Amino acid sequence: MTEVRNKQVVLRDYVSGFPKESDMNIVEGTITLKLPEGSDEVLLKNLYLSCDPYMRILMTKVEDPDFFSNYKPGSPLTGYGVSKVVESGDPDYKKGDLVWGITKWEEFSLIPSSLILFKIEHTDVPLSYYTGILGMPGVTAYAGFFEVGSPKKGENVFVSAASGAVGQLVGQFAKLNDCYVVGSAGSKDKVDLLKNKLGFDEAFNYKEETDLNATLKRYFPEGIDIYFENVGGKTLDAVLLNMRVHGRIPICGMISQYNLTQPEGVTNLANLIFKRVRMEGFMVTEYYHLYPKFLEFVLPHIREGKIVYVEDIAEGLENGPTALVGLFSGRNVGKQVLVVARD
Amino acid sequence: MTEVRNKQVVLRDYVSGFPKESDMNIVEGTITLKLPEGSDEVLLKNLYLSCDPYMRILMTKVEDPDFFSNYKPGSPLTGYGVSKVVESGDPDYKKGDLVWGITKWEEFSLIPSSLILFKIEHTDVPLSYYTGILGMPGVTAYAGFFEVGSPKKGENVFVSAASGAVGQLVGQFAKLNDCYVVGSAGSKDKVDLLKNKLGFDEAFNYKEETDLNATLKRYFPEGIDIYFENVGGKTLDAVLLNMRVHGRIPICGMISQYNLTQPEGVTNLANLIFKRVRMEGFMVTEYYHLYPKFLEFVLPHIREGKIVYVEDIAEGLENGPTALVGLFSGRNVGKQVLVVARD
Ligand SMILES: NC(=O)c1ccc[n+]([C@@H]2O[C@H](COP(=O)([O-])OP(=O)(O)OC[C@H]3O[C@@H](n4cnc5c(N)ncnc54)[C@H](OP(=O)(O)O)[C@@H]3O)[C@@H](O)[C@H]2O)c1
Ligand SMILES: NC(=O)c1ccc[n+]([C@@H]2O[C@H](COP(=O)([O-])OP(=O)(O)OC[C@H]3O[C@@H](n4cnc5c(N)ncnc54)[C@H](OP(=O)(O)O)[C@@H]3O)[C@@H](O)[C@H]2O)c1
Repeated sequence: MTEVRNKQVVLRDYVSGFPKESDMNIVEGTITLKLPEGSDEVLLKNLYLSCDPYMRILMTKVEDPDFFSNYKPGSPLTGYGVSKVVESGDPDYKKGDLVWGITKWEEFSLIPSSLILFKIEHTDVPLSYYTGILGMPGVTAYAGFFEVGSPKKGENVFVSAASGAVGQLVGQFAKLNDCYVVGSAGSKDKVDLLKNKLGFDEAFNYKEETDLNATLKRYFPEGIDIYFENVGGKTLDAVLLNMRVHGRIPICGMISQYNLTQPEGVTNLANLIFKRVRMEGFMVTEYYHLYPKFLEFVLPHIREGKIVYVEDIAEGLENGPTALVGLFSGRNVGKQVLVVARD
Repeated sequence: MTEVRNKQVVLRDYVSGFPKESDMNIVEGTITLKLPEGSDEVLLKNLYLSCDPYMRILMTKVEDPDFFSNYKPGSPLTGYGVSKVVESGDPDYKKGDLVWGITKWEEFSLIPSSLILFKIEHTDVPLSYYTGILGMPGVTAYAGFFEVGSPKKGENVFVSAASGAVGQLVGQFAKLNDCYVVGSAGSKDKVDLLKNKLGFDEAFNYKEETDLNATLKRYFPEGIDIYFENVGGKTLDAVLLNMRVHGRIPICGMISQYNLTQPEGVTNLANLIFKRVRMEGFMVTEYYHLYPKFLEFVLPHIREGKIVYVEDIAEGLENGPTALVGLFSGRNVGKQVLVVARD
């Protein structure tokens, strides 16, 4: 039997407040590169792992997890990733297949094949894209903007965490839909990126604005039709003062709240009534049936350079904790990817 | 010319904080009971006036009113009412017609006929009902529950301000739709009314509950599918912890916030994401096209006693300020009507 090293990123203990690198340990275990006799599972070699904000939520000790079950101290993190099939007990997959879906933060993983979401068919684009534009964040941006946001041509769109994995796509989808798009992000470099590379009409650094309501009034003198919500808290509160009649707020995430023991209060909700605004939470997991349609839409745009995608690549599992924790200080510029192996 | 007395309820000055009776004056003017030469307006005798929570919002000095324009100090309040046409410059109306729509808080009003919403055709039911179940609050409950709430049979429905003009109807509509319905209200008598007369499955006095989250968990062990939002603030925050996956929150009003200079913060909005909840503000003014359909639905139920309607009747314009102000302390039991004249 071929027993090999299997480095893992393991949760040390439940987290409260902001996550730190020291909340995770790098552990060197071993794994036998052979499926157990009669197993219907799949053995994966993990290539690219995705650093996602929701992972913080799974680090909290909670009673009633609604999405994936949350992390257990001593066990490796789970998350989205791109992997290569080493051996398969499920006839749908065979050695050498490239797949994306839920895997573990380790070099090799033995997992139920039901955690695999899709076989990767198109490899003329970077494989890491299947953690981003062609993976979960891509479907999130697509479903959140088009299905939940119901955009009309020419509408005014505001995106927060706009340079991130999801936000940069929402902005580009909105431009393809002839909308006026403004993004907010946390540094001058990100603002430049939004305006010069990602095609946003305008962008601002929210950390430098002292009166977000006034800032939004400046960029949206006629109000916001769609606010793609990634951050929550103060930004949402200011947005509520600037929504247009019949506006929509797809609620994708509220990253500014994930590390607070007591979330901030949002005070301007009564504007939803007078402006007849729809605010709607959604989870990408309910939209994977759109994946084929999404690929058909997005792949040609990528190939023609009409949609670009900014990635922030960290090398090696041992840098996973830093990369993951960095999401909550805005250290990442674009989609945060962790490379475990390139093939 | 027949000049007669025209008593009015006039705003004294803009209001901040809770409204008081002394924020309004009773003024005795006169009016000529004759249309000015060539006028296309209508001269109305006001019979029943409607006391509505939104009227408080029009008493605030604001820059950018979105609904009606707000009240001016020295002028009579405007509001919904049932009136009889005295003289009409608009061929669509003639002397003796009964109408409901927007009128002024006075005995006789000269108004543009565009403020009239509907001619009253059915008089086998109490005329005052056209300020309530057959008027604006009725359409509000109908549109908010059926159109915005998208109820399915057997769902779990929670209604706040449940014994009020709108709430008592939402509960009865939900029961007709085979839902499980719980209401909250501010006194023991109202709770009894909800359970014994209005057909709610359960009801509680929110003023006596120290932990609203626990209360809701008790009444909704499996969660809430539809929360019909009338009050906002702490109630909404507790509800957000108890919504079921794919729940809906039609936001009709937030009466607990109308008198606060700084609205309360709502902290549990992130639950909208994980539970994929839709929260949607609406205004009855966008649903009056449903009025004929609504009448067809509701009139037979009233006649057969399958829907009942509780009114709280105040007599005489001079009691208008007390009646109106009472909405904000829960003094009213059922729809607050003000009788100016009975015919
Ligand atoms: N509903 C779903 O199914 C679903 C799926 C995927 C993602 N999401 C959500 O979508 C949002 C974006 O995810 P993503 O993958 O695209 O992440 P990302 O934007 O690539 O990375 C997170 C970014 O959030 C910003 N941020 C961190 N703390 C913040 C704070 N306190 N206030 C404002 N911004 C802050 C940082 O950028 P700055 O430098 O700009 O601050 C950081 O780079 C997250 O809320 C995530 O949970 C939801
Ligand atoms: N969107 C629209 O088009 C539209 C149309 C009509 C009405 N509305 C809204 O619908 C809601 C109900 O209106 P309604 O006409 O049916 O009024 P109502 O319920 O007949 O009267 C108001 C009731 O609100 C309750 N209340 C007052 N202050 C409160 C507080 N701080 N916390 C909790 N409850 C409080 C009181 O009952 P308790 O004794 O139970 O506290 C009071 O009796 C209001 O928010 C109103 O603005 C909206």
